[in-house]
Amino acid sequence: MEHIKVRKLLINYKTLEAFKRFKAYGNQELSMLEDLESNMVENDSKSPFYGVYYGDNLVARMSLYQIKKKYDFYFEPPQDYLALWKLEVLPDYRGKGYGKALVDYAKSYQLPIKTNPLINSHGFWEKLDFQKAQYDMERDLGENPLIWLPSGVKEKETE
Amino acid sequence: MEHIKVRKLLINYKTLEAFKRFKAYGNQELSMLEDLESNMVENDSKSPFYGVYYGDNLVARMSLYQIKKKYDFYFEPPQDYLALWKLEVLPDYRGKGYGKALVDYAKSYQLPIKTNPLINSHGFWEKLDFQKAQYDMERDLGENPLIWLPSGVKEKETE
Repeated sequence: MEHIKVRKLLINYKTLEAFKRFKAYGNQELSMLEDLESNMVENDSKSPFYGVYYGDNLVARMSLYQIKKKYDFYFEPPQDYLALWKLEVLPDYRGKGYGKALVDYAKSYQLPIKTNPLINSHGFWEKLDFQKAQYDMERDLGENPLIWLPSGVKEKETE
Repeated sequence: MEHIKVRKLLINYKTLEAFKRFKAYGNQELSMLEDLESNMVENDSKSPFYGVYYGDNLVARMSLYQIKKKYDFYFEPPQDYLALWKLEVLPDYRGKGYGKALVDYAKSYQLPIKTNPLINSHGFWEKLDFQKAQYDMERDLGENPLIWLPSGVKEKETE
């Protein structure tokens, strides 16, 4: 099986242009574009995105960010964890393991992971050992949180 | 023009069954169903949802929840605000003002409102005087926050 390489994406016009092909393009990307245009950030500075290229094309991506322990309301014992969002594989490249490769990369940090998946993607996440977090409205509002627990970590009990 | 009546929705099997016709059915609804089945909540207890009926059918809904001032990272001066999510009108009933009626109901509290709209619904929100909040990754992660400011309230400046 082909090795899939996951790369940290840098903020530059080429990456931001490639992002426009993804469905979840939103305020986060627009804000990076504005920051680049106004020289608030330097070209090729680090973004929170990771991606997979096929040749010269960005075909899959996710955003990944480490949340500090003091903001951890999901895990027991409380600890730093990763928030994963905007995991997306372009339609022509699905079913080839690119999504799994990105999630495996996130897991390699051996920190708990929280994501808020799209409706109807639960089969994908279950196969990767993510489980539904107990829904707590004041914490989760409009989210459908799924979590992944490395060994030794439990879900925090909600009241 | 016909008057559109917005009702607070109560948690019962009929409402939860009606929720299944909405696309954003997720953990929040499943959790209410489990709570009802296990008698954790009483039948007809209050839900965070508001809806519009057409005859006997629930055709539009939103979830609305008051966030306490100490968790306000969006407005200046800091204050209680409303988080609005899962605003949705069933396909056959769109373009008749049901979505606007729900948002107008939320505005009637005269508190600032924050929502995280679906991609491609920005035209709808702009017409209702919602504006894009400045994107702050550590606060907003995968969201595309839009806010509505009642008079005398400003957006909080981010660094």
